[in-house]
Amino acid sequence: MKLTILGCHAATPRTLTNPTAQVLEIRNHMFLIDCGEGTQVELRRHKIKFSRIKHIFISHLHGDHFFGLPGLISTFRLLGRDSPLHIHGPKGIKEAIVLLLKLGDSWTNYPLLFHELDSKDEELIFEDDRVTVHTLPLNHRVYTNGFLFREKLGERKLNVEAAVKYGVEKAYFRNVKQGKDVLLEDGTLVKNAALTFDPPPPRSYAFCSDTLYSPDLVPKIQRVDVLYHEATFLESEAHLALKTKHTTAKQAATIAKNAQVEVLILGHYSTRYGNLELFREEAKTVFPKVELARDGAVFNFDV
Amino acid sequence: MKLTILGCHAATPRTLTNPTAQVLEIRNHMFLIDCGEGTQVELRRHKIKFSRIKHIFISHLHGDHFFGLPGLISTFRLLGRDSPLHIHGPKGIKEAIVLLLKLGDSWTNYPLLFHELDSKDEELIFEDDRVTVHTLPLNHRVYTNGFLFREKLGERKLNVEAAVKYGVEKAYFRNVKQGKDVLLEDGTLVKNAALTFDPPPPRSYAFCSDTLYSPDLVPKIQRVDVLYHEATFLESEAHLALKTKHTTAKQAATIAKNAQVEVLILGHYSTRYGNLELFREEAKTVFPKVELARDGAVFNFDV
Repeated sequence: MKLTILGCHAATPRTLTNPTAQVLEIRNHMFLIDCGEGTQVELRRHKIKFSRIKHIFISHLHGDHFFGLPGLISTFRLLGRDSPLHIHGPKGIKEAIVLLLKLGDSWTNYPLLFHELDSKDEELIFEDDRVTVHTLPLNHRVYTNGFLFREKLGERKLNVEAAVKYGVEKAYFRNVKQGKDVLLEDGTLVKNAALTFDPPPPRSYAFCSDTLYSPDLVPKIQRVDVLYHEATFLESEAHLALKTKHTTAKQAATIAKNAQVEVLILGHYSTRYGNLELFREEAKTVFPKVELARDGAVFNFDV
Repeated sequence: MKLTILGCHAATPRTLTNPTAQVLEIRNHMFLIDCGEGTQVELRRHKIKFSRIKHIFISHLHGDHFFGLPGLISTFRLLGRDSPLHIHGPKGIKEAIVLLLKLGDSWTNYPLLFHELDSKDEELIFEDDRVTVHTLPLNHRVYTNGFLFREKLGERKLNVEAAVKYGVEKAYFRNVKQGKDVLLEDGTLVKNAALTFDPPPPRSYAFCSDTLYSPDLVPKIQRVDVLYHEATFLESEAHLALKTKHTTAKQAATIAKNAQVEVLILGHYSTRYGNLELFREEAKTVFPKVELARDGAVFNFDV
């Protein structure tokens, strides 16, 4: 599992800071989460192959999370994409994109599939044999969802040495990895545990931006490995956080602590702050393992 | 008159090249022409004061000329703008922007005034005491206009030495600059020509992008000082220019030559070309004074 932060600043793109967009690599998927203006340029800068992006998740329709999407969709067309692109986002996103394509008479020549969200409850919005994605309804000025990505338990790992020792034939390996025991020709039953190692524990990533401090998130993200939570403000501006429906670094850390997550990544900083280390310091007063998102940062959770 | 090229490349924003956007400073106006994705970042990079932009002219609704506009409008709001912003662009632009603002529940707190264009004929779309702006209907895949900016003839310049010599009082200077003669107290009539110099000749700038090679442009831009004309392709790709309704460098130069303009600036290069000097070389076979637009280039026509 690997997270690339393309942009993690609030409000407006600036010369050196980008609005929200990130790429989550998980079990060979490459999910794009939010798509602020300039995202396609950051994807290029990070040499992320456009064709690997098949699902885009948009949290809400504020410009700093969404205004890069029309351009990215157009660029996919110009590059000759033919594989389907799935857009998961708030109701209205389809109308907006379709109108922009219509005005430019620039229909995509690949299937563009919209999955519009309007539920206020958590829901499963993507599932295959490797991962699930659930919404995390958030509390912001417009309809907003976070997203919870969970790996499924993978196949068991074959203990090759043991397989040779017991004389298990290659033809059975597929079954063994799926947890089956093996009955040898001489009638001996070899239990699966003797032939395999446990699969790596499935990992999980919760993306929560933008939102008012919402303790009701806690049970929904209990024990996730990595929590990205917005921290637009410091506690000194808690009144602004309340007014604009954002969170402070300390509040984000409180969510992380109560949800017993492994790591908290902060982001979506207001441009009023020069020194981002203040966010880490404030959060650390509540929760120990705090990372700061920075544009261009790569978090590799496999190592 | 000063032209700042924020972006001059076709199709998609890339790591080092921006889509079309430029700022024309003319008689104290600061006009933004087209607004591809990333324009607001380029405006910041060039330290162009956002508040000085009061009119934005959009040639057509392809993404590479337009997808930076929603973000710029939102940023103006976030920065607390209160002065009106005028958007001149093809019919449909209002519906698109209004929908995006509605979805984000992010109405501007400054007046946003749309002037939608749908005429196929040249028309006057802006005029004050200093400049006029006319559309230049172009021939592209969607409804497209170029824009012709013309300074009006300014006031005559006072010849201070002559005014002192003839004993013209200060109170008359305003009238003198406006071309009036002066009747002295002793009955002598001092002709205006003896008291003033000619004003600087009014200058003009024609922006023509995107378009198929269109000889019918020639009479409309006759003898303009500066012509920016798209040259998406070289002659070797003339078949692509025809197919996609774009122009080659040689064709752009032919327009410049026949319109007897002073300077031709080329831009809107296809990303297929590495060496832009080839555009200049090709155009120079037809027309002598050719400049290449480059992202970040500033053309100062006052010096």
